[in-house]
Amino acid sequence: MISEKMQKLVAGSSVTRAMFEEGNRLAKIYGRENVYDFSLGNPNVPAPEAIKKAVIDIVTNEDPVKLHGYMNNSGYEEVREAVANSINERFGMNYGANNIVMTVGAAGGLNVIMKVLLNPGDEVITFAPFFGEYRNYVSNYDGELVVVSPNTKDFQPKLDEFETKITAKTKAVIVNSPNNPTGVIYSEETFKKLAEILVKKEKEFGTSIYLVTDEPYRELAYGGLSVPYVPKYYHNTIVGYSYSKSLSLPGERIGYLVIPSDIDDYDLVFQAAGVATRVMGFVNAPSLQQMFVARCLNESTDLSYYERNRNTLYEGLLEIGYEAQKPEGAFYLFLKTPVEDDVKFSEMAKKYNILVVPGTAFGCKGYVRIAYCVAYETIVNSLPKFKELMEEIKKG
Amino acid sequence: MISEKMQKLVAGSSVTRAMFEEGNRLAKIYGRENVYDFSLGNPNVPAPEAIKKAVIDIVTNEDPVKLHGYMNNSGYEEVREAVANSINERFGMNYGANNIVMTVGAAGGLNVIMKVLLNPGDEVITFAPFFGEYRNYVSNYDGELVVVSPNTKDFQPKLDEFETKITAKTKAVIVNSPNNPTGVIYSEETFKKLAEILVKKEKEFGTSIYLVTDEPYRELAYGGLSVPYVPKYYHNTIVGYSYSKSLSLPGERIGYLVIPSDIDDYDLVFQAAGVATRVMGFVNAPSLQQMFVARCLNESTDLSYYERNRNTLYEGLLEIGYEAQKPEGAFYLFLKTPVEDDVKFSEMAKKYNILVVPGTAFGCKGYVRIAYCVAYETIVNSLPKFKELMEEIKKG
Repeated sequence: MISEKMQKLVAGSSVTRAMFEEGNRLAKIYGRENVYDFSLGNPNVPAPEAIKKAVIDIVTNEDPVKLHGYMNNSGYEEVREAVANSINERFGMNYGANNIVMTVGAAGGLNVIMKVLLNPGDEVITFAPFFGEYRNYVSNYDGELVVVSPNTKDFQPKLDEFETKITAKTKAVIVNSPNNPTGVIYSEETFKKLAEILVKKEKEFGTSIYLVTDEPYRELAYGGLSVPYVPKYYHNTIVGYSYSKSLSLPGERIGYLVIPSDIDDYDLVFQAAGVATRVMGFVNAPSLQQMFVARCLNESTDLSYYERNRNTLYEGLLEIGYEAQKPEGAFYLFLKTPVEDDVKFSEMAKKYNILVVPGTAFGCKGYVRIAYCVAYETIVNSLPKFKELMEEIKKG
Repeated sequence: MISEKMQKLVAGSSVTRAMFEEGNRLAKIYGRENVYDFSLGNPNVPAPEAIKKAVIDIVTNEDPVKLHGYMNNSGYEEVREAVANSINERFGMNYGANNIVMTVGAAGGLNVIMKVLLNPGDEVITFAPFFGEYRNYVSNYDGELVVVSPNTKDFQPKLDEFETKITAKTKAVIVNSPNNPTGVIYSEETFKKLAEILVKKEKEFGTSIYLVTDEPYRELAYGGLSVPYVPKYYHNTIVGYSYSKSLSLPGERIGYLVIPSDIDDYDLVFQAAGVATRVMGFVNAPSLQQMFVARCLNESTDLSYYERNRNTLYEGLLEIGYEAQKPEGAFYLFLKTPVEDDVKFSEMAKKYNILVVPGTAFGCKGYVRIAYCVAYETIVNSLPKFKELMEEIKKG
């Protein structure tokens, strides 16, 4: 009796989430320490101490009627202003409160902007491998996700193929850098070329094509690598940000959209984002979270923790004989599976209590995603198991 | 360049919200104390002190990785269990964690359940006057809202007309008691008859018709009146609850859905509610809010505050010569406008710095909604202004 759309969604329910549940099941049987659960991007680094202090200070000193009350659907004006100022300082932009919409995480923000932009049948392009939920965020509004095939050489987007896939119906492009699931940072060159192509195609078709950049992993870049700030390269850019990973707050559902004043139809898009926030039932990003992130804009997570995990995992796997792209950011490693079928490989891995997500879930078969935002011991203890798995495979 | 649906929504953007912004504008000019802003259901009673204590205790003592982390999309199991137990104690039900989905307020919950149930073209019936957002919550999923005309005698639903409006396409019915905007509590008799009709029609059409009961005002009933617990009367009932009003937390976005085990296709509906929560971008109800409401399930707001407001406002208005339904619950008074056109009346009221929402926004012309969840002084000081307004009208 549920809707046809939901029947399909339930049937093919998120592989990642199913793994998460499987991990909990195995942990009950074998003990948490004997399960190598790399399935979910749930940070193991605690939120900065400053969050706790901010929360206590806010509930102690703020007027509860204001703190817990309704505000503009886009968020508290002073919070949006603080967020804008912080972006301006870091990236040399010139945003104000009216360029920021506080959202229920990046997932909430992406849904808001898709709701704002898409008519049924509109096309949204993304680059494989990609976060599988994009398919839902687009189909929620009857749009069609168009996927550019993966470039398994270095996992930068295939821009030639991209150009051929842009049509008069292309309403938006979603990019995600540092990338889930590869950990690759899209280069400045990539964004320059991407922008060139978009400008050309906008002219050719007489349309506006919005570049939506999903940035939950912006702050997670290793070895001093910098992550290009996309609105600098292309005028019609909308940023979806989340504090889930940068401050280890994924359950708290807090993020924001940047809607720059120089995008086409700025006024309408900005106003519609507030209205969409309301009618979709978010109403507003949770008020306490808005207030406490505004006080922690200069806080950061413990990058060295993830970097150690990355190095130990990457080097350990290579030593065993696996092949992988070295992650530059985020907390995912995209492993080439030594057997062709990535679903089969992830099933084989389960026998060693290793949980990884098949690349097919990200539109890229022959790989699995390993989320290394786990305890360091999990990495260390999993390596002998990865080795046993490799030995089993070699034996055939 | 925004979607056609959003263009319409932006153009006809929420009258209530526009009023809220107008109130802020007038307050800047005349001072907050000289504006009688009855436009929005934003509680003026502070949240119970226990909320503050719970928040401080949680951030001080809970493991931050668990507290701020992802959990099941339906919410923490122990929170859902605590909520279920609390309902069981109060209403003699027999729910468990698997009957509860924690949601981003009732608005989030209603969107989730509409997403779960509706195929394009499915019909959802509601009773005027009704919370205008229902129109959006249904059209978000391409359903059609079918409105039963208002019964202005006592504002109980018109069940005869209801019966004639049920078709093979009727997928759900939304009720809201205590009601926004009338403050009326639907009687036990109403629910018994409603259930009878639904059972009969389900048989006639061979369909399942879900009764969705929107209950943000459940705890706000005056003079010892009780609010019937709807699942007791009809098997296919789904409850959408919110702590926004009962604990004065509207900005915090926390509520829940009750999905009883004896509804048709319970397994699918419950599972789909979790999946819908994820794909719509809520992902989960904010984690800190889940934890603190679970510790405050026996807390309540200061009912006597709203009851005094109600009495002073209702009696004051009647004395001046206005007509109104006496509110039994919620914090709204539905005033019959002394001029036929309620939009005109609300415009006239603005000249006296009185902000009220026209009944047409709720599908019931000739009335305005007065949200009396304001400071007591606002009520007292507004009455002379209401009197001047009445005198102006009488003069013609």
